[in-house]
Amino acid sequence: MINTLFLPELREMLSEGNLEELREFCTALHPARAAEFMEGLDNDESWQVIQHATPNARAEIFQYFEIDRQHELLASQDEVEVASLVTNLPADDVVDLFQELDTSRVDQILALVPAPDRRDIRRLQTFAEGTAGALMTTEAACLAENLTVRQALEQLSKQAERLETIYYIYVIDSTNHLRGIVKARSLVSAIGRPETKLVDLMQTDVVTVNVQDDQEAVAEKVAFYNLSAIPVVDDQRHLVGIITHDDIIDVMRQEATEDVQRISAMEPLSDSYMRTSFLTLSWKRGMWLTILFFTGLLTALALQYYNQELEKFEWLIWFLPLIISSGGNSGSQSATLIISGLAAKDLDRNDAMVILRREALTGLLLGSFLGTIGYIASMMLGQTYFTGLVIPITILSVVTVGTSLGSMLPLILQKLGLDPALMSNPLIAGISDILGIVIYLNVAVLILG
Amino acid sequence: MINTLFLPELREMLSEGNLEELREFCTALHPARAAEFMEGLDNDESWQVIQHATPNARAEIFQYFEIDRQHELLASQDEVEVASLVTNLPADDVVDLFQELDTSRVDQILALVPAPDRRDIRRLQTFAEGTAGALMTTEAACLAENLTVRQALEQLSKQAERLETIYYIYVIDSTNHLRGIVKARSLVSAIGRPETKLVDLMQTDVVTVNVQDDQEAVAEKVAFYNLSAIPVVDDQRHLVGIITHDDIIDVMRQEATEDVQRISAMEPLSDSYMRTSFLTLSWKRGMWLTILFFTGLLTALALQYYNQELEKFEWLIWFLPLIISSGGNSGSQSATLIISGLAAKDLDRNDAMVILRREALTGLLLGSFLGTIGYIASMMLGQTYFTGLVIPITILSVVTVGTSLGSMLPLILQKLGLDPALMSNPLIAGISDILGIVIYLNVAVLILG
Repeated sequence: MINTLFLPELREMLSEGNLEELREFCTALHPARAAEFMEGLDNDESWQVIQHATPNARAEIFQYFEIDRQHELLASQDEVEVASLVTNLPADDVVDLFQELDTSRVDQILALVPAPDRRDIRRLQTFAEGTAGALMTTEAACLAENLTVRQALEQLSKQAERLETIYYIYVIDSTNHLRGIVKARSLVSAIGRPETKLVDLMQTDVVTVNVQDDQEAVAEKVAFYNLSAIPVVDDQRHLVGIITHDDIIDVMRQEATEDVQRISAMEPLSDSYMRTSFLTLSWKRGMWLTILFFTGLLTALALQYYNQELEKFEWLIWFLPLIISSGGNSGSQSATLIISGLAAKDLDRNDAMVILRREALTGLLLGSFLGTIGYIASMMLGQTYFTGLVIPITILSVVTVGTSLGSMLPLILQKLGLDPALMSNPLIAGISDILGIVIYLNVAVLILG
Repeated sequence: MINTLFLPELREMLSEGNLEELREFCTALHPARAAEFMEGLDNDESWQVIQHATPNARAEIFQYFEIDRQHELLASQDEVEVASLVTNLPADDVVDLFQELDTSRVDQILALVPAPDRRDIRRLQTFAEGTAGALMTTEAACLAENLTVRQALEQLSKQAERLETIYYIYVIDSTNHLRGIVKARSLVSAIGRPETKLVDLMQTDVVTVNVQDDQEAVAEKVAFYNLSAIPVVDDQRHLVGIITHDDIIDVMRQEATEDVQRISAMEPLSDSYMRTSFLTLSWKRGMWLTILFFTGLLTALALQYYNQELEKFEWLIWFLPLIISSGGNSGSQSATLIISGLAAKDLDRNDAMVILRREALTGLLLGSFLGTIGYIASMMLGQTYFTGLVIPITILSVVTVGTSLGSMLPLILQKLGLDPALMSNPLIAGISDILGIVIYLNVAVLILG
């Protein structure tokens, strides 16, 4: 939905060259709202509008443009203006944007960017996607350890406008080793004691991540320690950047979506649905559908094996899909509970016995209930009190096997170093289908003779 | 896994009453690590240790204790000490902790808490769980609009130690209406111009949430606007609190887990797996299993209806589970993709036609591939080139129907105001099972005569 409220005014300001009002529009509104009001403008118009903002405000508004518009603007607008914008964007965001541009265009822009910023961008480009290095920004508030509170505030005052956050101030020695952190609120609290040294205010036991760490591990650390930003260090504990809470929130969203896709037996997409090509999508789904299909073929073999029994008691077939799906559904519920428990670190492998007992009991309870409904249904479809017993006994067994198996498989897969989210549901579907058929027909032979 | 590294030393410090070293332990380490090293101590011992920390450090370490230990300590330790701790904890966390305590104990503790803190806690207790009010803390950095930068820093310096964050400074008028915000970094940048008024630094277009807003909507707003904290206002735009990024991260984790549970056809748990009672767990799972079971019973009726055909061509039964699960699996993949796209706001109902075309095409492609494998399998199980054709034709149809239906159902459910995550998979399983049987047997009759 495009917000057209301000469009006529914006176009009029542009055509009249009303600099005063354009500047007012860019600064008075929240940058996100300014970007929203510009959605109806074309790329050239919106670029013209933000040229009237201060460099900082321009960068902020730009970051709230739709991602496709951001790429198009970088690709098409005047290089000098683009380079000036790039200088004011967080370096980590620039690296992400550059991935979609031609290398020649990137080189052209970077040539116009001041050397220190260019170096930052070039360095960040070397880190592999999904690592702490690729998430971090280099604009951290860094101060030398021998400064006093008064000196620190003065230096900070000069740095502050170009920093993303001053929530934490990073205290470094002369060779850029991270020595400690000072919270902005501790520094501000100490204003009354201006000669206090930073070294006396700082916490030295700092939670850090290595530049090579996986982004999921980074997000977990930030969530566990309730941090607003986390410092990134290299193997020699040099401070190389910080990762801020907004990037962590993005990682958590991305990981949550990936988990949901894995649980539904699909390779996680690396982009949104609409931006993923038809063939990539088909491949990521087809892979697992094919694996599931082959386990499904085993059910065909199993049923062929029991052909004689099925011929003799035809009514057994009517309940076959019901029985198979009861086992699969209860098993995938159990697997999901354990997978999310493992992901949230509420559970670990030491809980295996408690989990198994709980899940087996749950299976017995749910199986008895569903079995009773099934028993009634079998009699409504013409079975006697005795022959109908095949159904509840089978359902009770299948559901209990389903919950027990569903809860244990993620733990076993994790122990084997495999991803429980990705493998559990296909495996459970396959195994519980086969077991369902085997249990069903053996119970039938036992009771019906 | 309990970290026993420091246990002997800690116990020795306690028995010797070595105040100096205990204080050192509580302040030098990161509070989370101090809490971790205390895991092996019993409740009384760990309480004694943290009595040697400063009030602030004590509160921080306490917040990293296991949640059960936090409850036990509040319930069992000396009221005066507990009340002093409570005064230093964020009010929103206190409210959460109090929910697990007897009301009489809560009253006893609150009687010893200073009146302003007590009022804050009492007020927060009135907000329903899952609303912005229940998430917020009242300790925001608030300053009057007519202050200068110098005055603001002085006042902030007095407030800072008891605040959770000074990332944003909230500018209010004399009746507590929110007038604007100043970022800490803007304030620090202006140190060189100490007579500047706050009113000239502040942004007036502030993103806020209402105290009654749902926590999921709050988390989305924070993520969209990349905020570190969001102010909470009442209907008259009085500032009543702020919600900080750590609470937002907790909400996002909780919502992600709930989505996964919904997608696996389960009522979301309100607590972790281990802390949820056996009966609650069985009820939340049993409800949906029963609904799925009743849709499964429809397959029994459908199969009974086609009894004659099944008697005539017995081999059809062998492929029945395979065909049903192919439709269900491909359908639930599509549904999951659309549900996560809707949740991430990448998709909306206006994309319905594009989605349907894509999904139908994906279904045709995947269906042809799986159908070919099925065709080969049918011949290996004794069918001719001609009779075996039943299998690929059915699979192609079932998979295409599955993907189309799976992608459209979440959109339809959302339009009807229902939760797509909760309803889609059970409905798809039910519908695709029945449709699978109907398509299969009609194709069979058509080909086999």
